[in-house]
Amino acid sequence: SDWITIPPSDLLVMDLVPPAQGPGQASAKARPRRVVIQLMPPPFSQGWVGNIRTLAAAHWYDGTSINRVQDNYVVQWGDATETKTLPSGLVTVGGSAYSTPVLDVSSTSKKATSPPFALPLDTGEYGWQLDPYTSTGTGLFRNTGVSGFSAGWPVGYLGGPGPAPMGARRVGIAWPVHCYGMVGVGRGMSPDTGSGAELYTVIGHAPRHLDRNIALVGRVIEGIEHLSSLPRGTGALGFYETAEERVPILSVQLANEVKDLPAYQYLSTESETFARYADARANRRDPFFIRPAGGADICNIPVPVRRLPEK
Amino acid sequence: SDWITIPPSDLLVMDLVPPAQGPGQASAKARPRRVVIQLMPPPFSQGWVGNIRTLAAAHWYDGTSINRVQDNYVVQWGDATETKTLPSGLVTVGGSAYSTPVLDVSSTSKKATSPPFALPLDTGEYGWQLDPYTSTGTGLFRNTGVSGFSAGWPVGYLGGPGPAPMGARRVGIAWPVHCYGMVGVGRGMSPDTGSGAELYTVIGHAPRHLDRNIALVGRVIEGIEHLSSLPRGTGALGFYETAEERVPILSVQLANEVKDLPAYQYLSTESETFARYADARANRRDPFFIRPAGGADICNIPVPVRRLPEK
Repeated sequence: SDWITIPPSDLLVMDLVPPAQGPGQASAKARPRRVVIQLMPPPFSQGWVGNIRTLAAAHWYDGTSINRVQDNYVVQWGDATETKTLPSGLVTVGGSAYSTPVLDVSSTSKKATSPPFALPLDTGEYGWQLDPYTSTGTGLFRNTGVSGFSAGWPVGYLGGPGPAPMGARRVGIAWPVHCYGMVGVGRGMSPDTGSGAELYTVIGHAPRHLDRNIALVGRVIEGIEHLSSLPRGTGALGFYETAEERVPILSVQLANEVKDLPAYQYLSTESETFARYADARANRRDPFFIRPAGGADICNIPVPVRRLPEK
Repeated sequence: SDWITIPPSDLLVMDLVPPAQGPGQASAKARPRRVVIQLMPPPFSQGWVGNIRTLAAAHWYDGTSINRVQDNYVVQWGDATETKTLPSGLVTVGGSAYSTPVLDVSSTSKKATSPPFALPLDTGEYGWQLDPYTSTGTGLFRNTGVSGFSAGWPVGYLGGPGPAPMGARRVGIAWPVHCYGMVGVGRGMSPDTGSGAELYTVIGHAPRHLDRNIALVGRVIEGIEHLSSLPRGTGALGFYETAEERVPILSVQLANEVKDLPAYQYLSTESETFARYADARANRRDPFFIRPAGGADICNIPVPVRRLPEK
């Protein structure tokens, strides 16, 4: 009961062409390389997530390609020709939506409450932790934030100014963070230039400096190896230099269009099971380890996702 | 002058077979995939590093293979047949050598001193930082360590028990940490079972829980894309399930046996240039970024390494 089924409406399925076969080899056996993405639920990034639903429903991504593979950083896909007409109905979203106002709850309550979205602020050893990427200001004006998990996602949190009265609520901001496999929205120099037509996923050490600088819209929950093992691009920023190197995308579909897609579940991050899991990540107890670390950074505690077990 | 040339005697060169060609295609043009590794200088892991020199000098690794590619974790190589006779002269090293006694210097001195190895203990914003993986004990007995850079390497540090008198020295322990590209010694259940014949490198988010549990002996300074982009193994722990999937290693040689190897340099981690670089990693100032993070974890500040520029 600690496993929560992901609504099929939050699943996005990207099929890449099958892996290259030698010349003359039949490719009938080769299957498309499938990547399954979980879109982010409210309250985060919903403008961009809505755009991605629109783009997928219009089959806009079909026939685009993987264009950039930068080692220890990101894989990026979209329309390399930059000529494809976008569907109508896309919204423009600005950088202020990279984080979301949330309510604190007092540290005496460990349960998340609603509405609309409240973080359980327990800064215990394996709960919300101080985090070098969640601060603002410098010196005397420095306000240090935390990171932790809420509703199945890794998030950063920064409280409002000044201490909150005991037990009182105040409004802070929260935002999803760039761990391995997270999916974000490529953009130009201006924060409002990313529509969701150009996407990337993290394939290296967590590039947390991108937090609050780019919109995160989901995470790869299956098949990331089809992206992370692609040849690295040799152009600037890991872009492929020739059209031949690009990996064609057959289709990106919402789950309701995909036949025989399994159901997926994530482990509730509010469950005791998750707390034990996080503790086990920080203190490895299997006999291989002679010295448990006693701590772990948020991206070294990936939220467990599984296929719904067959009965 | 802030760039320090790596002694050629610390360079290890691994050549993998050229990438697969289609059947019937001439492979004359294809070059071996070259991976260059910098071995770790004293005081860290020298027992294992000595073994690796012995193994490479004996050409023991030649004809072994990449056997394991686990997504977001490690690539591992060695003798998959487990039948190859090891050369004589290898030493057995135990887990106590995963960290090294070092001298503190007082926080008033920012310069590293010697002998044998002293860490500049400046816990400033971008110097030595509190780190969730450097602690020991729990609760009242918890002793929190730091991580930072010393002599070109990312290291963790934990002070001796009790506060040190102002300006005084005390002995703590330091150890290299598992960032992307670091190279370590595979072992069995017992810490003294890793000789250096089986090696791995990190190809994902920093698995810092391995710190002080496995010996680190170096880092990949060129060609890691030849390892990180390999197909993931489908067996347990990412091991390849068939001999055909393994990637043959043509040779692993010490630099003195390799013709025309360029010279490499790393940026001195004690230099002002490095301090500015670390600050820039924590506070991205190029115009793409609308919100500098104000901090960075140690593995998001990779030590810059370059080929010696031609005059």
